[in-house]
Order: sequence, then C-alpha cells, then structure tokens
Amino acid sequence: MSDERFIGIIDSGLGGLTNVRELMRLMPGERLIYVGDTAHAPYGSRSDETICCYALKSAEFLAEYDLKMVIVSCNTISAQCLSMIEKKFNGIPVIGSVLPGVRAAVMRTAEKRIGVIGTDAAIRSQAYTRAVHSIDSDIAVYGKACPLLVPLVEEGLIDFDVTRAAVQHYVYEMIDLGVDCLILGCTHYPPLIEVFQGTVGTRIQLLDSSLWTAKEAQDILVALDAFNPQKHGGIRESRFFITDLIPAHKEQVRLFADFQDIVLQLIPSERYHR
Amino acid sequence: MSDERFIGIIDSGLGGLTNVRELMRLMPGERLIYVGDTAHAPYGSRSDETICCYALKSAEFLAEYDLKMVIVSCNTISAQCLSMIEKKFNGIPVIGSVLPGVRAAVMRTAEKRIGVIGTDAAIRSQAYTRAVHSIDSDIAVYGKACPLLVPLVEEGLIDFDVTRAAVQHYVYEMIDLGVDCLILGCTHYPPLIEVFQGTVGTRIQLLDSSLWTAKEAQDILVALDAFNPQKHGGIRESRFFITDLIPAHKEQVRLFADFQDIVLQLIPSERYHR
Repeated sequence: MSDERFIGIIDSGLGGLTNVRELMRLMPGERLIYVGDTAHAPYGSRSDETICCYALKSAEFLAEYDLKMVIVSCNTISAQCLSMIEKKFNGIPVIGSVLPGVRAAVMRTAEKRIGVIGTDAAIRSQAYTRAVHSIDSDIAVYGKACPLLVPLVEEGLIDFDVTRAAVQHYVYEMIDLGVDCLILGCTHYPPLIEVFQGTVGTRIQLLDSSLWTAKEAQDILVALDAFNPQKHGGIRESRFFITDLIPAHKEQVRLFADFQDIVLQLIPSERYHR
Repeated sequence: MSDERFIGIIDSGLGGLTNVRELMRLMPGERLIYVGDTAHAPYGSRSDETICCYALKSAEFLAEYDLKMVIVSCNTISAQCLSMIEKKFNGIPVIGSVLPGVRAAVMRTAEKRIGVIGTDAAIRSQAYTRAVHSIDSDIAVYGKACPLLVPLVEEGLIDFDVTRAAVQHYVYEMIDLGVDCLILGCTHYPPLIEVFQGTVGTRIQLLDSSLWTAKEAQDILVALDAFNPQKHGGIRESRFFITDLIPAHKEQVRLFADFQDIVLQLIPSERYHR
C-alpha cells in the first residue's frame, strides 16, 4: 500500500538539501515539506536552549501538514533536541541525523576509533559519543567542532586554498588519533567530500550523514509499507519553505541539491513569528 | 553641565565591543547600556527586512532606559535601517557607524578612490556609496563583501594562515583598483588590522569604523554639553545585554574589548521575544 502523505523535513537552513538530494535519489516518488530556518541560521554557534526554541517553531509549522514521517536533517538539531521533536510528532516516526551515521561507522570501524566533525553545538552535546556507546562502549569517539566550514561552503568556496587549509587545520589530528571512520556530521559537508578525502587519505572511511539518514528513512518507510514507489511525487510536488530569503540562496540550492526546479518559498510572518 | 544618563549601544552581537573599547578610551566617565543580538547574529547574511525586524527589537529593548544618545555600532544595521532607529528615538541623537568612517576617508583620499569592506548586507545596501557621494560625487567607491572574516575572527583565528589567505582573497583587488583609503566597515575587523596592513601595504590608509564612530559620539556629546568628564561611570557602571549566551562568548569579549570586567547578561525571554 502506498502512502501519499508528505515527509516533513526540519533543517536550520539550506544545508538539509544535501539530505533531500539523497532522499530523492532513493525515493523519487515521495513528496516533501521542507522547512529551513534561514532567519536564525547558523544554529551551530547558539546555546542549547535557543536551538531548541528555534527548532520547536519549525516543528510547529510542519505539524500543520498531514505527514507520514519527519526527518531532522540538521545534525545540530538532532544532537540537541531530537526527543523534543519526537514528542511533538507523537505517533509519526521521527528520523534524526545522528544515529544513522553512527550505526554505519560502528559497523565499519576495525580499529574501534571513530572521528566526528560537526558544529560547535553538535559536538558540545556529546550526542555522537552517547550514540556510539549505546551500541558499543569499547569504541573511542573523537569529536571536533569545525565552525569555519559552514560559512566556507555557503560562500561556495569548495576547490579553494583557504578551504583546504581550514580542512587540514580541523581534520589532520584525526589521522594522528588513528581513527578509521570519520562521520561528516553536518549537512554542509558533502560538497567538501573530495577535499576531506584528499586530506585524510584512503585509510579513513568517510561516512556522509545526509546519505545514511536518507537510507534509514527509506528502510523505515519500506518496513511500514508506507513507501511510494511510483514516480508521481518528487521535487515538483514538494514544497520548500524558508524563514528568510536573500539572493545568495539560489546559488546555495544549486550547491547543496543540484536540482534545477527547487523553488524556495518565504514563510509569511503571520505564519511564523521571527 | 554633565549628563549622567546612559549611552545606548545597538549591535548585532559582540563585535560592537570594538566600538565600546574606543568609546571608553575617549570617554571613560560615560555609562553604557549595550544590547547585542547574539541570538540572531550574524546579520550580514540576512535580508533587508529581517535585519530591520531584528534591529527594531533591540531598539525597543533599549528604549526602556533613560538615554542621552544611541550609537548603532553595527555597520550592517547602520547601512540598512538607521533612519528607522532615528525615528524610534525621536529627540535623542542617534549615531550610525557608516558616516563617521566615510567622512574620515573623504578627507584623506588624494586619488579620490575609496574602498569599503563589510558584510554582504552592508555592501549590498550601497549605503557607503551614497554617503560618500553625498559629500563628493567625484569620488569612486569600491565595495567588497567579505563574509568569511566574521566567522574567522569569532573563532579567534587572527595570526593564522587561513585568515591571511582569506584577507588576501578579499582585499588584493583594492590595490589593483588604486584605492588609497580602505574603510574597515564591520565591527569585527579591528582585531585583523595588522593582517590588513600587511596585505595592502602602507600606500593604503585603513579607516577603522569603530574608532571614527566613537570620535563622532564624543564630538556630539561635547557640542551638546552632555559629556561626562569625570571618571565616575565606565565599564563597571555599564550593562551588557545579549540575547543568547554560549561559552565561546567569553573569549570573544576578550578579543573585541580587552576588558576584564565586562559581564554579559542574558536578556530573559519575557523581556525579549526571540
């Protein structure tokens, strides 16, 4: 039985489109309602309380739609307040973006040493360490906050000396620490995957959180028999809401999602108090 | 006659403390009420409407105090919505941070070529070009948005190869353009002044907006006979409010203001709707 209800996506901005890209590759028949809180991004440098306050507003906006699943694409929100969002959507499956990448890494680490890179708030939360240890407490977890990478990617500075220097600055220590799996724990990192791989070499396996989160969403929809195999949904029947709109967003959509026909819609202030 | 009322300071975050440092050097007897909107920073990558909406909230918070002057330390707010704030504080002098640096540059440019660096929103507003041309329409103005510099400075990465590469990326073209004055049009740039000077050499004069804004405030208070020459005010009798608080703010206070005794106070949510 197919279930034509929407999948809701919560993100702190446009980075979640890297997750949307993977979702659409795996499930081109699904229809999405995306809400990206560009008026308050970036969340990674905010306090725990403020992140939860902002994420709750997005959850309230999404809750007005008839949803079959909610995906929290933003790793910072997932790390800080997934349980709050689960409560808000009581009865609907809520998929966070911390656990899928963690599971993939735990299955792959031979050295039992996993590295995680992400925002300040995601790393500070210790959510990755707790998630790894809930599966195997013998695995060492090394977290590193990389606050410059979000603005670099948002500027579109990918194949660029400043970016390579910043990536080296953050991830060289993962080589010294002997990790064999590195979780890319932020939606903004997939465009940098070649820069990361060029920096850490092939001995370290990179786990793209956006990809593993999409796979988990697919597994759960299949298990619930709520998967839409037909190609009647997709980007054109999805809606992409944001809370602030600037000219640079167009280029960011291209970078994160590579879809020509994503149209961003500004949520009017009467529907979303900024 | 001295006037012991407060000077109100509006800023989008903690960068305005570079302006506070200059104010305290020039006028150690003044008492300040600072409001830094750290819950919504950085403003530089937001739309015109959203910047004005956020700045108005800070103005409303400040308007509860008995003020003799308001200084808009943030260049982005000044460039986007100074007139709105002037209306809000009808009857009290409101000092923006665009015009003071512009006046200093116009008086100094022999080549009649002025460069300006700032946030996306400040440069996009064309406020600097309009301000220069309101004084001398024969002067060419070259604006360059430098979005990476705010996160680099907030990370404390000053004497650092990534930062030098980013500064070169943004300002080398000012040399080719033949400017002889470069306005540092963002509160975050003063900690980088040696990096800038090392990049553009001594032929280009740097105009620190935070410093010239403080000088203008002093001139106006003296002209109004509202200046407090005694040392009875100062940082200890000033109050520093912010809208979000994270551990990294402590280090940013040290970097921007170099004052040991600035205590940041989080505005409770009942007084400031986030």
